[in-house]
Amino acid sequence: MSLVMTRSRNLALVSGFFLLTSVPAALAAEEASLEERVEALEQQLIEAQQRAQDAESGAREERMEQFARHMEGEEGFSFNGYARSGLDIGENGKSAPGDPYLTPAGSVGGAVGRLGNEDNTYVEATLNYLQRFENGAKSHYRVMLADYSQSSNDWTAADSQLNVRQVYVEFSDLPAFTGAFENASIWAGKRFDRDNFDFHWLDSDFVFLAGTGAGVYDIAFNDAWKMNLSLYGRSFSEFPTDTNVEPETDSTDNLVLTANNYFGPVQWMISGMSAADNSERVVAGSQNVADKGVHTMLAYHGDSFFGLSEGNFKVALMAGEGLGAEVKNIGSDGNLNEDAVSTRFGVYGTTYISDNWRIAPMILAETSQDRYVKGDEYNWLTANVRLADEINTNFEMQYETTWQTMDLKPQQYAGRSDAQGHYAKVTVAPTFKPQVGGFWNRPEIRAFATYSTWSDELNDYAETDAFGQDDFTGGQWTFGVQAETWF
Amino acid sequence: MSLVMTRSRNLALVSGFFLLTSVPAALAAEEASLEERVEALEQQLIEAQQRAQDAESGAREERMEQFARHMEGEEGFSFNGYARSGLDIGENGKSAPGDPYLTPAGSVGGAVGRLGNEDNTYVEATLNYLQRFENGAKSHYRVMLADYSQSSNDWTAADSQLNVRQVYVEFSDLPAFTGAFENASIWAGKRFDRDNFDFHWLDSDFVFLAGTGAGVYDIAFNDAWKMNLSLYGRSFSEFPTDTNVEPETDSTDNLVLTANNYFGPVQWMISGMSAADNSERVVAGSQNVADKGVHTMLAYHGDSFFGLSEGNFKVALMAGEGLGAEVKNIGSDGNLNEDAVSTRFGVYGTTYISDNWRIAPMILAETSQDRYVKGDEYNWLTANVRLADEINTNFEMQYETTWQTMDLKPQQYAGRSDAQGHYAKVTVAPTFKPQVGGFWNRPEIRAFATYSTWSDELNDYAETDAFGQDDFTGGQWTFGVQAETWF
Amino acid sequence: MSLVMTRSRNLALVSGFFLLTSVPAALAAEEASLEERVEALEQQLIEAQQRAQDAESGAREERMEQFARHMEGEEGFSFNGYARSGLDIGENGKSAPGDPYLTPAGSVGGAVGRLGNEDNTYVEATLNYLQRFENGAKSHYRVMLADYSQSSNDWTAADSQLNVRQVYVEFSDLPAFTGAFENASIWAGKRFDRDNFDFHWLDSDFVFLAGTGAGVYDIAFNDAWKMNLSLYGRSFSEFPTDTNVEPETDSTDNLVLTANNYFGPVQWMISGMSAADNSERVVAGSQNVADKGVHTMLAYHGDSFFGLSEGNFKVALMAGEGLGAEVKNIGSDGNLNEDAVSTRFGVYGTTYISDNWRIAPMILAETSQDRYVKGDEYNWLTANVRLADEINTNFEMQYETTWQTMDLKPQQYAGRSDAQGHYAKVTVAPTFKPQVGGFWNRPEIRAFATYSTWSDELNDYAETDAFGQDDFTGGQWTFGVQAETWF
Repeated sequence: MSLVMTRSRNLALVSGFFLLTSVPAALAAEEASLEERVEALEQQLIEAQQRAQDAESGAREERMEQFARHMEGEEGFSFNGYARSGLDIGENGKSAPGDPYLTPAGSVGGAVGRLGNEDNTYVEATLNYLQRFENGAKSHYRVMLADYSQSSNDWTAADSQLNVRQVYVEFSDLPAFTGAFENASIWAGKRFDRDNFDFHWLDSDFVFLAGTGAGVYDIAFNDAWKMNLSLYGRSFSEFPTDTNVEPETDSTDNLVLTANNYFGPVQWMISGMSAADNSERVVAGSQNVADKGVHTMLAYHGDSFFGLSEGNFKVALMAGEGLGAEVKNIGSDGNLNEDAVSTRFGVYGTTYISDNWRIAPMILAETSQDRYVKGDEYNWLTANVRLADEINTNFEMQYETTWQTMDLKPQQYAGRSDAQGHYAKVTVAPTFKPQVGGFWNRPEIRAFATYSTWSDELNDYAETDAFGQDDFTGGQWTFGVQAETWF
Repeated sequence: MSLVMTRSRNLALVSGFFLLTSVPAALAAEEASLEERVEALEQQLIEAQQRAQDAESGAREERMEQFARHMEGEEGFSFNGYARSGLDIGENGKSAPGDPYLTPAGSVGGAVGRLGNEDNTYVEATLNYLQRFENGAKSHYRVMLADYSQSSNDWTAADSQLNVRQVYVEFSDLPAFTGAFENASIWAGKRFDRDNFDFHWLDSDFVFLAGTGAGVYDIAFNDAWKMNLSLYGRSFSEFPTDTNVEPETDSTDNLVLTANNYFGPVQWMISGMSAADNSERVVAGSQNVADKGVHTMLAYHGDSFFGLSEGNFKVALMAGEGLGAEVKNIGSDGNLNEDAVSTRFGVYGTTYISDNWRIAPMILAETSQDRYVKGDEYNWLTANVRLADEINTNFEMQYETTWQTMDLKPQQYAGRSDAQGHYAKVTVAPTFKPQVGGFWNRPEIRAFATYSTWSDELNDYAETDAFGQDDFTGGQWTFGVQAETWF
Repeated sequence: MSLVMTRSRNLALVSGFFLLTSVPAALAAEEASLEERVEALEQQLIEAQQRAQDAESGAREERMEQFARHMEGEEGFSFNGYARSGLDIGENGKSAPGDPYLTPAGSVGGAVGRLGNEDNTYVEATLNYLQRFENGAKSHYRVMLADYSQSSNDWTAADSQLNVRQVYVEFSDLPAFTGAFENASIWAGKRFDRDNFDFHWLDSDFVFLAGTGAGVYDIAFNDAWKMNLSLYGRSFSEFPTDTNVEPETDSTDNLVLTANNYFGPVQWMISGMSAADNSERVVAGSQNVADKGVHTMLAYHGDSFFGLSEGNFKVALMAGEGLGAEVKNIGSDGNLNEDAVSTRFGVYGTTYISDNWRIAPMILAETSQDRYVKGDEYNWLTANVRLADEINTNFEMQYETTWQTMDLKPQQYAGRSDAQGHYAKVTVAPTFKPQVGGFWNRPEIRAFATYSTWSDELNDYAETDAFGQDDFTGGQWTFGVQAETWF
């Protein structure tokens, strides 16, 4: 309230002044000497200017600044979101199964190009509340609701997945923080880590660190070295701890301690994790499950297209052991074998190859051994290229071609059979945008036609996955429409 | 940020000007000649006026305009909602079963008056994000959460129906759109169609088209003819495809293509739909289920009370075959017979019959044959009148009387027996409003007393519906309180 | 839109004026006499002042006032929230079971200190829409989503509890309301009662009245006596109505009528409730279940620390019979015996004992007989002290010690055994805040170490509760991090 009152008072001053002074000035015109009248005028002008200036510099300006911050999401409530929703219909006139993870390799993170490969509705609604305190400190509260549905209906209560993915507070500009912590911010709660980054075209992160915990961002030891520290907890689903007796169940926690170091464009991430009694878990009939793990990533964030042209590129090498062998969703897989080892390599770049043509090539590949069962082996590689031809300010043609090769030897884990072969997809997508320009600006409304083909051998990998379905073999055409936005 | 900086600079100019010029002016008063001083004054006034004008026309005005748009839901985040919540207690001291669809005819869309007939909490929370782009284009993103509960408790996690009913983006003012599309807007995602309209008093739409897809609004072929085109997908629930073997299940999609034509107040809607292998579905032991359908509606939107007085009226004739025989919830019923035919007629009007009395009479009727089983027949008619007497600016007495007659021959479909008879209801509802005036302004807080009565024969229609319940036969009184709002 | 147009017009006037008058003034400078020029100047100044004043007092000011209200949550959309999220890990490296209700007494409302005793994520997201009407009336619409999860994962769809806890409208400043109702507000829908108040440190309310209904606040019979009236419905879960035959189920409603009287700092609350056929319910094999009840509370709200120093205190005596014997969650327990009686006493205070040390001592105790089974008895007392040492503007050390004694004789109700003994807990919590000062300002980010110990006898009370778990006996250390906020 105080601000409002202050403002009102200031304005009263200004208005009051005008009423009080302008009337006498008018009367004065009759009898006073020119000399007096000019002096009066000068006086009035000076006072008017002074008063006007006071009013300008008062609560009104503060409000205007506050509104500017409000509209820019820097104060009070703000709304962020991501959403995609659409249809993807096969030649049989029914929704095409699957998504970027539809191939056998997808079961271990081997995504393929997403364009024209999604028939679901996924939405994230993020509500923020930003506060500024008298001492200059800032607080950012965030809660995110998310839902995933493959139903095209408007009422999906029966299969709703709506849940709360993030709830946390983060403090910054804390006056009591000094030295290496002067510009540090601290957080606690449930969140996606700030430093996650992704291959947009595969709907896959390089690394995705998330859970419930606390951390510190932007500890600056010197100009060249910044560090972020975090502790995240993950909950492993309940599991039988004994196969002989009737299965009682138990659950456990995986605690992940992560240090993220930045040296200019170079990022070195190192994580260690421990999951209490996870070694008691029974997987594929035996108890060799990991109860600890380590994960690391060396990444480079380039501000050009590999130094060749304008754009950007990112390249990273990820490796993990034990619970760390799930190298993307860090610490989230409780079934990993104690001997599990994985190495993953990823690279992408974006640039313009002419005034209106953009290109984004990428490669993601992983090799993983003793992952769930001693002796199993998972090898896959995905290559993907997204092309866009900007026709006018509201329309562009998008093209995506993706190719994946895989050699998977799951050793019957989860009833899976060996799978060796290839998958390929080509998509053409006429795309509408409020304003074209670059790979990252949304929203988009797109139609698409996709042709995909794959080795028949891949259909035997699992009965439950897309390729395992009777009416989904060999190659196929799919057609669809989709909206996508983020802000 | 740019806007903020711009504004700050402008204001610095103005303030700075005042400081620099007013002080010399004051000193000047001592020695300069009248001539010079008057010239100085004139000069100052002109400059002051110019500067003031510059400031006015600067970033500050843009911000004020932006805030006006923000508060009017035209830019940035905006919130829309619908909600009703209350109690409806029967003579036995327990919640009265049912809602406007409580009669046997309700099972095929025959709603009755809702006033004093609702004991649930239904809420729609709609979050919008509106963007304006440099090229003048606009984007409207919308996500709607909705929940329905018959529990009076505050914690309803166990029976929560919370789900996402809409997620879509719509673009308008696209500079690249010209000719017939100059004022067109395009959309994709999951939504309620923009052109749906309803009988508020029955909680029933004339037509309710919704699902996941894409479309174009406001294609203008000429001044007299506007067309909207849309493709909506619906998901049919899983169903057994064979009754002899153990029922495996399968699901399918219903694709609905709709053209909505407007010729002034006349609307002609035509929809065709196709649902892949829905003919394999087994209903009532046989496989005569429709896998395609057609639906049409001819409507008139009147801007007076049937030309007799001020107000409005709407009248529509709807007809459908096969999957189109569900004439309201277009394309949503996968059990319809291949020979199903339905015809529905609806009309309502609203007007003032004196300074403080409003009236809204309406009729809704349908006849439907071979709907789910060859030879079945469903005929029903509902007449309803809502009356309101505006006592003062915050209070009005509302009255509703509804009558329904039905003759249903379901041929044992879903275990239903023939039902022939009548239902009647009278409700008196003292109603509080922040500001009375018209049928559409909300919120309202109402108490009500309802007396309803119906033919005993109707109790045998189904064991599962309201009338089928042991403690709910013959006629009855119910009493309740309720809040309703939309904005 | 009207406001925008008005503003634009006003500004046009001002700018227009400047252009039209300043230019002639400039030309005039050449030939007119000093006399004429001074008159012109005076005239211009007067008009300029008048015009400026008009502009100031116009739509722009309205907008600035409106924005002030908007940012202060008084008009349009506003967002409120509560959230806590964190980890609490035991010596075994796994999440510690339980929360403030983890002891046997917790099963009948006997909470203990919450600091360092919570391992869950609980969030309330409240969306408000506030309207002001031409006649001066105001409407406040509120919908609250809430979720509770013990999972540390970011995707919790499988065990999501997300549900709608509040949906209501409240009207105030109704011009038609006069006399005792002049300042009254009315509401209907699903809500937490406005008059609930709590022991923050136990996560327990003194009284928690909530449900679906309607009411009136702030009826003022005279300066000394204000009354609030409400009718709340509660839904009792389904229950078998007969033990001999195969259990059919039925559900019922509990209607709670409450009068809340305020005489200055004194509050007297009286509630009567009736639950139709709840007496048919079978509990512990017999049908002595209450179908009515009465509840009352006498409370004092102190604006000092018991008159000794600055701060506040609250003290209350609650008592209930039958369905009223659940003295906190009024009317929410349908299993209470017809002879159940409970009496609860609570008191807390907060104050500063030095410049930077705050203290908040409290006691909560209850005695309850014939609660669920004739002859059962539940007696418990909790004493808790929260201490805080404000180290600097962003950091404080928080300490909490809690002690509980209990003597429970459940008579095998719900398979529970007698439990007699003590529980004690000490927690140290280094706490970060954007700005320290008082017990109520949030957000907070805290780490904590907790040592708790209890009588072994308590482990046998129930197999299902925290103490009943194999790996949770005797005393233990837990360590954690947590965020908490409300706004």
